[in-house]
Amino acid sequence: MSALTPLPAYSTYQFMHVTSPGPYLAHLQLNRPEKLNAFSRPMWLEFGRVFRQLSLDEDVRAVVVSGAGGRAFTAGLDVVAAREEGPMSGGGGGGDGHGNGNGNGNGGGDPARRAKGWRGHIEEFQGCISEMERCEKPVICVLHAISLGLAIDIACCADIRLAARNTRFAVKEVDIGLAADIGTLARLPKIVGSNSWVKDVCLSARDFTAQEALQMGFVSAVHDDKDKAVEAALEMAARIAEKSPVAVQGTKELLNYGRENSTAASLRYTSVWNSVALQAGDMPAAMMGVFSKRKPTFEKL
Amino acid sequence: MSALTPLPAYSTYQFMHVTSPGPYLAHLQLNRPEKLNAFSRPMWLEFGRVFRQLSLDEDVRAVVVSGAGGRAFTAGLDVVAAREEGPMSGGGGGGDGHGNGNGNGNGGGDPARRAKGWRGHIEEFQGCISEMERCEKPVICVLHAISLGLAIDIACCADIRLAARNTRFAVKEVDIGLAADIGTLARLPKIVGSNSWVKDVCLSARDFTAQEALQMGFVSAVHDDKDKAVEAALEMAARIAEKSPVAVQGTKELLNYGRENSTAASLRYTSVWNSVALQAGDMPAAMMGVFSKRKPTFEKL
Amino acid sequence: MSALTPLPAYSTYQFMHVTSPGPYLAHLQLNRPEKLNAFSRPMWLEFGRVFRQLSLDEDVRAVVVSGAGGRAFTAGLDVVAAREEGPMSGGGGGGDGHGNGNGNGNGGGDPARRAKGWRGHIEEFQGCISEMERCEKPVICVLHAISLGLAIDIACCADIRLAARNTRFAVKEVDIGLAADIGTLARLPKIVGSNSWVKDVCLSARDFTAQEALQMGFVSAVHDDKDKAVEAALEMAARIAEKSPVAVQGTKELLNYGRENSTAASLRYTSVWNSVALQAGDMPAAMMGVFSKRKPTFEKL
Amino acid sequence: MSALTPLPAYSTYQFMHVTSPGPYLAHLQLNRPEKLNAFSRPMWLEFGRVFRQLSLDEDVRAVVVSGAGGRAFTAGLDVVAAREEGPMSGGGGGGDGHGNGNGNGNGGGDPARRAKGWRGHIEEFQGCISEMERCEKPVICVLHAISLGLAIDIACCADIRLAARNTRFAVKEVDIGLAADIGTLARLPKIVGSNSWVKDVCLSARDFTAQEALQMGFVSAVHDDKDKAVEAALEMAARIAEKSPVAVQGTKELLNYGRENSTAASLRYTSVWNSVALQAGDMPAAMMGVFSKRKPTFEKL
Amino acid sequence: MSALTPLPAYSTYQFMHVTSPGPYLAHLQLNRPEKLNAFSRPMWLEFGRVFRQLSLDEDVRAVVVSGAGGRAFTAGLDVVAAREEGPMSGGGGGGDGHGNGNGNGNGGGDPARRAKGWRGHIEEFQGCISEMERCEKPVICVLHAISLGLAIDIACCADIRLAARNTRFAVKEVDIGLAADIGTLARLPKIVGSNSWVKDVCLSARDFTAQEALQMGFVSAVHDDKDKAVEAALEMAARIAEKSPVAVQGTKELLNYGRENSTAASLRYTSVWNSVALQAGDMPAAMMGVFSKRKPTFEKL
Amino acid sequence: MSALTPLPAYSTYQFMHVTSPGPYLAHLQLNRPEKLNAFSRPMWLEFGRVFRQLSLDEDVRAVVVSGAGGRAFTAGLDVVAAREEGPMSGGGGGGDGHGNGNGNGNGGGDPARRAKGWRGHIEEFQGCISEMERCEKPVICVLHAISLGLAIDIACCADIRLAARNTRFAVKEVDIGLAADIGTLARLPKIVGSNSWVKDVCLSARDFTAQEALQMGFVSAVHDDKDKAVEAALEMAARIAEKSPVAVQGTKELLNYGRENSTAASLRYTSVWNSVALQAGDMPAAMMGVFSKRKPTFEKL
Repeated sequence: MSALTPLPAYSTYQFMHVTSPGPYLAHLQLNRPEKLNAFSRPMWLEFGRVFRQLSLDEDVRAVVVSGAGGRAFTAGLDVVAAREEGPMSGGGGGGDGHGNGNGNGNGGGDPARRAKGWRGHIEEFQGCISEMERCEKPVICVLHAISLGLAIDIACCADIRLAARNTRFAVKEVDIGLAADIGTLARLPKIVGSNSWVKDVCLSARDFTAQEALQMGFVSAVHDDKDKAVEAALEMAARIAEKSPVAVQGTKELLNYGRENSTAASLRYTSVWNSVALQAGDMPAAMMGVFSKRKPTFEKL
Repeated sequence: MSALTPLPAYSTYQFMHVTSPGPYLAHLQLNRPEKLNAFSRPMWLEFGRVFRQLSLDEDVRAVVVSGAGGRAFTAGLDVVAAREEGPMSGGGGGGDGHGNGNGNGNGGGDPARRAKGWRGHIEEFQGCISEMERCEKPVICVLHAISLGLAIDIACCADIRLAARNTRFAVKEVDIGLAADIGTLARLPKIVGSNSWVKDVCLSARDFTAQEALQMGFVSAVHDDKDKAVEAALEMAARIAEKSPVAVQGTKELLNYGRENSTAASLRYTSVWNSVALQAGDMPAAMMGVFSKRKPTFEKL
Repeated sequence: MSALTPLPAYSTYQFMHVTSPGPYLAHLQLNRPEKLNAFSRPMWLEFGRVFRQLSLDEDVRAVVVSGAGGRAFTAGLDVVAAREEGPMSGGGGGGDGHGNGNGNGNGGGDPARRAKGWRGHIEEFQGCISEMERCEKPVICVLHAISLGLAIDIACCADIRLAARNTRFAVKEVDIGLAADIGTLARLPKIVGSNSWVKDVCLSARDFTAQEALQMGFVSAVHDDKDKAVEAALEMAARIAEKSPVAVQGTKELLNYGRENSTAASLRYTSVWNSVALQAGDMPAAMMGVFSKRKPTFEKL
Repeated sequence: MSALTPLPAYSTYQFMHVTSPGPYLAHLQLNRPEKLNAFSRPMWLEFGRVFRQLSLDEDVRAVVVSGAGGRAFTAGLDVVAAREEGPMSGGGGGGDGHGNGNGNGNGGGDPARRAKGWRGHIEEFQGCISEMERCEKPVICVLHAISLGLAIDIACCADIRLAARNTRFAVKEVDIGLAADIGTLARLPKIVGSNSWVKDVCLSARDFTAQEALQMGFVSAVHDDKDKAVEAALEMAARIAEKSPVAVQGTKELLNYGRENSTAASLRYTSVWNSVALQAGDMPAAMMGVFSKRKPTFEKL
Repeated sequence: MSALTPLPAYSTYQFMHVTSPGPYLAHLQLNRPEKLNAFSRPMWLEFGRVFRQLSLDEDVRAVVVSGAGGRAFTAGLDVVAAREEGPMSGGGGGGDGHGNGNGNGNGGGDPARRAKGWRGHIEEFQGCISEMERCEKPVICVLHAISLGLAIDIACCADIRLAARNTRFAVKEVDIGLAADIGTLARLPKIVGSNSWVKDVCLSARDFTAQEALQMGFVSAVHDDKDKAVEAALEMAARIAEKSPVAVQGTKELLNYGRENSTAASLRYTSVWNSVALQAGDMPAAMMGVFSKRKPTFEKL
Repeated sequence: MSALTPLPAYSTYQFMHVTSPGPYLAHLQLNRPEKLNAFSRPMWLEFGRVFRQLSLDEDVRAVVVSGAGGRAFTAGLDVVAAREEGPMSGGGGGGDGHGNGNGNGNGGGDPARRAKGWRGHIEEFQGCISEMERCEKPVICVLHAISLGLAIDIACCADIRLAARNTRFAVKEVDIGLAADIGTLARLPKIVGSNSWVKDVCLSARDFTAQEALQMGFVSAVHDDKDKAVEAALEMAARIAEKSPVAVQGTKELLNYGRENSTAASLRYTSVWNSVALQAGDMPAAMMGVFSKRKPTFEKL
């Protein structure tokens, strides 16, 4: 399968371009470059759907996410579309068969009724973006150029973040009059060490560079340009995809659990989880590989 | 209103000097320089009170805190006063009309009864300092020169921390025979990434410099001297004060919530919070500002 | 007592070499250098036991842990021994009088029954390593040379981590087909700020250097070689051991509590804890020491 | 709309029969009486879907759930179907477009791989049943005759439980060799006061009567037969449906939150929730109704 | 001191009538019988204040709360007053020097700004009622006649509830168009076993009798009339007041902690709490009393 | 094996008499009748040890606990022995090889140092009693006659509680000057529905009867005398012991987890737990038993 041709199983998406640049690898590109990859509602519904599919796809062991085009990872919410789609539109949110639709518009009603519409709308949006975090395969996110607002919400759901040198980051929401509500404020304090810096960038909405993101530990590496960053991400993903999927997927699950729960709860969960994971064929296969110096192969997962 | 004249609404405080150096800005100076801004009980009661007032004051959108005088942000607890005021004094804690007084002295009684006195005393003290964290407006704390013990407890309650180059930091409590109990040990592990460093400075009580604090992410920037640091803080505060107070105050609330709660709980809380915040006039006003390139104005909050 | 002669009270251990290089100091060396200090089951049972003893030993106020020999802090699990001892052996786990034995082998039975064996096995192992964290005295861990797999689990339980320049770190478990289950995945996200880095090293199993560990805040300092690092650790331990044990041990307890619990819960716990700790003789003694400039002495604890 | 004719908006369901026996009322009948209303996978997928729809349907303010036919509320899982559909089938779980499918069969693979299949399967099933609890409208569940296994899982998700005198309850799962995993063990300890009784019925799998269920507080009332119980449920639902939907739906949300969270967290959540709910027109309308003794009407929600 | 004369230390309250009907006993009567003891804002501010005072008063070891007059424990919120005082009034909430005032009225502003006013208002109100739960002395609440809405919020904060036979209970809030927000929905699911009953009475707002309250465990006993119930409460309080205050107050604290926290956390907190409580003189005194069959006396607390 | 002869594997206990009255059954009798089964330190250490052994013993699937002799289940702590053994003795707590010893006596030292001794003492004691709860096999506790103080702590750790009609229950601790600290205050609020009753009996230390315990749901049944109660417990245990041990032990684990954790966390834990438990041979065997109407047999666990 060429790295450029979309994977057939993912060919129905309009905004999600998925290729397989190597064995067990998926490369997902946000694909609306003419709009700086800004998100409309159909786009975030697809975003949720593609990660549910990637999570279950046995032929995928690691995922790289990047933004198509040179100008933006994503400029964030498509504000123009938002006015027509969401509770802002005053026309009700409609439904998408997925069941999380927002039944209330805000065309009428009192603040409590409009609030219900907003709540449904925000939770649907949060739910779609969070599918990236719930995806059982590791996800490496490559940011470049314009990476504002929703870009940070998305990056916070990734396991590993890399950046091109030209990335222009900002938690931009306060500049358009709202507190970020798609995940940044929930996750950033848990994934970056300096709370002072987190507060600074979220309260001021100021830009920060790839270099600053690296120093603060928000990203793990900075590369000269987008192509180099994607290449590095794919290499990292390829190395991970060679390893036992039982080990890799368990590690992701347990690290996420460890971040969210007390050490005692986490140790207990780990022992229950591994009590079956250790019964896989992967440990013997991996050890054999170590001793024989041959690359082991692992059953699908 | 001159930046030097105390705001009339805050003129009754003895140790808290509050000025307004710009629109919607408050600058609070710990004002007991002749004692290196060391805290007596009346001073920490005032500290709690001033932050409750700032939190409610619709004319304040961002707060800068610094210490008056060149020698200290604060030298910490006023140990001499503490001997006469608290359970250490043997004379009972008195009351202050605020209701959190410590009814038991330790002049007599058995260890359990003295413990009740200490408990009340510590909780009153914690409660006053924590008002800075509870203040709904962002608080930027500027540290300089002597910044020991309670200085760290206070700084941990700020949203953003800046330091002058000459700051002498120390979590000094173990050197006077106690574990820090006004908040440092509860908050520091959550606001700085390196637990090894946190343990080092708390267990050894050693001094650390502004530079080290910057490297570890405890402060966000170091400036040449106190004046420059205060100036930078005021500029930062001014930029924040220009933005939507609904967005800014929501961002502070949600970041604090995110730091303390699981991601799932935090996402839920965010959707409920924003379901009403998004009904403010701020988002349209801010967007209009973006499109028109004119500075938007926002209703009081 | 010479620093080289084992402390008599600790002379029965086979793999744990405990000396006292100074007043109130204990230096524990993992002592199986011919096997690169790899852990067999008897070794980890001893590891748990020695920390329970150190925690109760009134003559110990700070502990340094290092690995005997020049080649490794520890190479991790002794894989060869593991095949014969644990559920992998197919022969049942036996008992050790400690009561946490794993009653089920995996020689027979269905996956659920084997899972019970694994669960008991993992929990016993976790429990022994966690004793280092539960030890009420501060523990400084010195890593050098090979420091793989279990080395990271152990280091995560220490309060402060130092490294020799030649340390070769890796969270190696995925390379042998499993998710690390002795504590790394539960603790690392809480003790290092950059979640992106944590995911990177845990998912890729790649080596990282002492320098990288320092930059990410995993260790607090890097020294030229193992001897220098041990020396620095002993000096740090000696400074801590001179201080009030009530203050030091309370600080450790409260920092660990603060890392795991909400700020509100932690403040409450702190006030209850200190309501009795402040009744020790240590605060007056320490203050007297400050005023008199003489080194205070403190009762045993 | 007759109480017997299915509501048009709900006419596509195969196993869920939804009628509207009064204003703002929905009556959902589990409708597979020829199989004692036993659940196959298509049936539980419908169960989830119908509750998502009811939750959003502005014409529904209270829901009654009962089982069609005289012989059973539900006999639980359709064991015969389960052998063909789930991981037990050995054929993989397929997909349903809902995205929670279980990608792994257990036809092959090792225990860890089969575990992934089971996990996906259980979570999909749990998720569908939990939609009843998540439904924002109050749900009153009427049990009668055979009410085994899954019947208890479902009843635990209801807000209020009523029973016919002939109900035969049992937490039956241990009798077919498994621990109940669709919610009973998670919820029953939180919704019934006597833990001793909960353990008794769950560990012994014994039958218990409606009378015993009433005494233990599991159900709120027992009626002579199914028809009387349904009638009572509909009356109760009708009284609730007359009230302010803002008040009723908020009460459900806050009681569920209160059951799961600490009092402090719950009070905080309540104040945020009601800060917008109190801006509805419902409070003035309701008060006017009280004063004028006329039945108020409320806007849709 | 006569049981009828107010205790001098409590003579300044307008709505709180506090007498001492026996050694170490306080009897607090809600004292606005001409308004059915309905609560205005000054009244709930007093309610908070009187419990803070009782909590600290060393001459009080047990508290009985009842409602003055024969017609009501309390009819709940004084709706007429509420229209003039709170955010409903449109005039801003004012301040009371206590610092928790609600700075925002809802006279103007958008929904987000009005929400801030409501939030402050609700939290102040919750805070005052919760002082009854925080009071370190046991509180026995006697309900009689009209006991609606806020009556349940208050009763939920008591340790022990008794009722007169004529009590008319209702969680009345949904009938006036809101979800109860002063504590009932947060606490009731934790203090009564049958969640089905809790949902029933909260969603339907129906009246329930003392007998029903007894059967469901909401109250511990029902007495023939208010006088008999108060008498029984005073006897119960007198028996508790004879016991060690260290034991009694510790028991209250630990039971509340146990209700809100996991068993593991609660056991840990218990051991820390009792590590100092057991150093009181109370245990020897109590044991001496047991052996000598003489009533022990205990130091004040 | 006769029901009267101790099981050989349990013959070394002094105070724990363990027999096997049927297949896979263990009957543990507290065996110090001449002291009313009062607990000395050696006795509670044995209590912990015997439950660790029972938990691992594959020949045990259900446990009944009762007190030897006719006069008492247990009179609680052996107060006379406690004066000589614990921190009360002033002689230090010694060690027992189990590592949880209390290293500090209270003969000397200040309150903080004595507190450490008490803390260690309480935690060792709690730990031993909690082993009954941690035991993976269901435990049915039969109470009779004198059942004071520690009797309630122990009963709270059981899964199911039965009582003889003559049982005299009391949470007696406040009468000897302390708050119960071995588990009653942590567990009782979670296992009995009426918090008002829980507070009543814990604060008043009053006796309550078997009948009252039944009404409040503390016990599940009352039998005419101890023999009948033991017989009923053994029958109940026998029925449980016939069932799949995978199903039974999983049910206990998941119910305990459900009691302590949120529903969401509990559902997740359930799916992970059952993902391997469902791979046991027990489900097919049990189903075959149902269809064939023959009693299935299950592999050991």
